[in-house]
Amino acid sequence: MASVRIREAEEGDCGQILKLIRELAEYEKLSDQVQISEEALRADGFGEYRCLVADLPPAPGDTQGQGIGSKIIRRVAQVALDQGCSQFRLAVLDWNQRAMALYKALGAQDLTEAEGWHAFTFDGEAMRKLAGK
Amino acid sequence: MASVRIREAEEGDCGQILKLIRELAEYEKLSDQVQISEEALRADGFGEYRCLVADLPPAPGDTQGQGIGSKIIRRVAQVALDQGCSQFRLAVLDWNQRAMALYKALGAQDLTEAEGWHAFTFDGEAMRKLAGK
Repeated sequence: MASVRIREAEEGDCGQILKLIRELAEYEKLSDQVQISEEALRADGFGEYRCLVADLPPAPGDTQGQGIGSKIIRRVAQVALDQGCSQFRLAVLDWNQRAMALYKALGAQDLTEAEGWHAFTFDGEAMRKLAGK
Repeated sequence: MASVRIREAEEGDCGQILKLIRELAEYEKLSDQVQISEEALRADGFGEYRCLVADLPPAPGDTQGQGIGSKIIRRVAQVALDQGCSQFRLAVLDWNQRAMALYKALGAQDLTEAEGWHAFTFDGEAMRKLAGK
């Protein structure tokens, strides 16, 4: 099994990160919602926010089944504890049973299922209407 | 109707803000989840995060029905647009139909209902286990 290294993202990773964002959106059937540019990622992604990436040695075949998700989540837990966070949250689509099973196996609780939390969004058009712009 | 003024919170508001957090948690039947102290609010609440408060002139009776929620959400939309945000999100419990109806009337979309998004949380115990601490 290839050895995976988890590290802090650098600005030079933004092209690859955008590619992964687009692949994830395609998998989630939400490609029309990806409007971010590489420039915006560079500008927004290295201040308040932090980003971790997984480096894989070049190898043939699928990247699934190598425990990359678990390793990244473990590192997120370390970073969150170091920052004094009392919890961290993930958003997941209800048909993505593979991701849900992983998060639960790692100790997460489904707050939507357990307590009934719904996520509401105000998009750009709604914001401009509210702000009178 | 009393005139409501929405303004940026100051450190001196933290005692009242914590009181409101506790009252909200009580309403949501989640009081056991409120572990934050006034000191932690002061330390965490004025850097990366911003907080808006509504000032009401002293008046008898209920604070509901004065449009405070709408006014705060309009201001949040203004702040979010000024900050270059493409959207902002709220979390709401499924039995809180009054809040849900207000958010929808103001232009929000229920992403859990429309697309199936679930909120997952890793709490302190789960994080420490993941991080091996």
